[in-house]
Amino acid sequence: MQLLDGRSTSEQIRKELAEAVQQRKKDGKKIPHLAAILVGNDGGSLTYVAAKVKACEQIGFESTLIRYDDSVPEEILLAKVQSLNEDKSIDGFIVQLPLPKHIDELKITQAIDPMKDVDGFHPVNLGKMILNLPGFLPATPAGIVELIRRNQIKTEGKKCVIIGRSNIVGTPLSIMLGRNADPGNCTVTLAHSKTKNLHEICQSADILIAAIGQPDFVTAEMVKDRAVVIDVGTTRIEDATRARGWRLKGDVKFDEVAPKCSFITPVPGGVGPMTIASLMINTLKAMELKGK
Amino acid sequence: MQLLDGRSTSEQIRKELAEAVQQRKKDGKKIPHLAAILVGNDGGSLTYVAAKVKACEQIGFESTLIRYDDSVPEEILLAKVQSLNEDKSIDGFIVQLPLPKHIDELKITQAIDPMKDVDGFHPVNLGKMILNLPGFLPATPAGIVELIRRNQIKTEGKKCVIIGRSNIVGTPLSIMLGRNADPGNCTVTLAHSKTKNLHEICQSADILIAAIGQPDFVTAEMVKDRAVVIDVGTTRIEDATRARGWRLKGDVKFDEVAPKCSFITPVPGGVGPMTIASLMINTLKAMELKGK
Repeated sequence: MQLLDGRSTSEQIRKELAEAVQQRKKDGKKIPHLAAILVGNDGGSLTYVAAKVKACEQIGFESTLIRYDDSVPEEILLAKVQSLNEDKSIDGFIVQLPLPKHIDELKITQAIDPMKDVDGFHPVNLGKMILNLPGFLPATPAGIVELIRRNQIKTEGKKCVIIGRSNIVGTPLSIMLGRNADPGNCTVTLAHSKTKNLHEICQSADILIAAIGQPDFVTAEMVKDRAVVIDVGTTRIEDATRARGWRLKGDVKFDEVAPKCSFITPVPGGVGPMTIASLMINTLKAMELKGK
Repeated sequence: MQLLDGRSTSEQIRKELAEAVQQRKKDGKKIPHLAAILVGNDGGSLTYVAAKVKACEQIGFESTLIRYDDSVPEEILLAKVQSLNEDKSIDGFIVQLPLPKHIDELKITQAIDPMKDVDGFHPVNLGKMILNLPGFLPATPAGIVELIRRNQIKTEGKKCVIIGRSNIVGTPLSIMLGRNADPGNCTVTLAHSKTKNLHEICQSADILIAAIGQPDFVTAEMVKDRAVVIDVGTTRIEDATRARGWRLKGDVKFDEVAPKCSFITPVPGGVGPMTIASLMINTLKAMELKGK
């Protein structure tokens, strides 16, 4: 069993990006600038956004954090999105999800200029993904594909089962791993809450990806010997032994599943850091797509 | 075994659309107007476009056919697309594919105003499909889903295998049948040229859809008893007994597969007429989306 270490892989990516920034400086080119909008005080969102800002600093990107109280009206948020669209100093920006219930996430997502949509959530970027056209790939699926690539895991002709069909992970990942690319060319089955015989379906997977947010959902009995297992779950569960009172728990029962795998991602330190690395890759790409 | 009769189902849809047109006339509303651009003299394309124009006439839509020689420069075609985008009398239009090799199909597809893209090929419409947002669904997959709906075939929790991952059929259909909708909620496996153990995978399918354009590819041995089989293939093969010298052949070896099925589409008369019906539905929708 080999650990798919997202932390070290993402460190390597950050190093490469930092070098690219240095090179841009030497060439007198603009330094990438990422902005993040954070609404409210959700613990998870605060952690993610802080990690993104920190990654920017490490790499040498500029970053701007814009915060709103969770009572912010939708119009104010839309106006901010519009002003970031027009702000030439900002190359890419994200609106951290989830948003409070009174705000329509899809409306916000669609208001972002697709050329600055470094989270890859805008419909035009999702459509370009289907058509294999240049655009921004959604950060988490792109991070998973990059983790697979950099660990030289063969995907062509492999059976891949993805559990969970969310707009931001499962569904786009099913397309990225199924299309004619490397990594790619898997035979992908997308499973979800209405799937029957899920255990049996998972047992046939050479590559099993869990993205449902249900701790310990995937048990050893569901996993084929020598499978590659990728755990996208990051649920906070109480943990009195930690000072902060919680720890992250994946969708996979790691202790019993790991011994059966050829590769497996830990939680934390697997997919999470790769999502942030993807966002950084997309931010640099935002400049390149514009020929800056 | 019951035949999924696309011809009679699409006739029913045309009748409903004709009634909607009559109602629009009574209400003093605009009559839908579809334009089609046809480049060159490919036999298949000629047939399809003629059928689309004829469907418009039957329903009472206005239609315009614009033809170019297959040497037409890309700029001329792009300029025409632009002028149709701006033409307020045209509600929707299509550029019949395939196009000659010197023209970039994806460039043309992306030049079409998404609000007039009744074929549903523009990236923004594909992305909206993923997000389940209002937009145009690609005509062939939408026709298949409509055929399933109108024949009251249950899809929730069913295993569906789609053979062929094209941008216009297999890939979008995999999303439409897998998402949380009715029809939908299938557990979809998307198979393709790199898939291994294809026979075995097909044997597990409650719903098997072939969209590869290889006559007689799907044999009885690949089909589960009582499966629903949908054949998207329409390859022209020589047939000296016909005056025109050819007939259409599907991807499924109909004679041996049909007896095993609960439902099966014939070729011709299955998916083909439904594609045209979808295009007509999209053209009416183009007006409704604009509030006309």
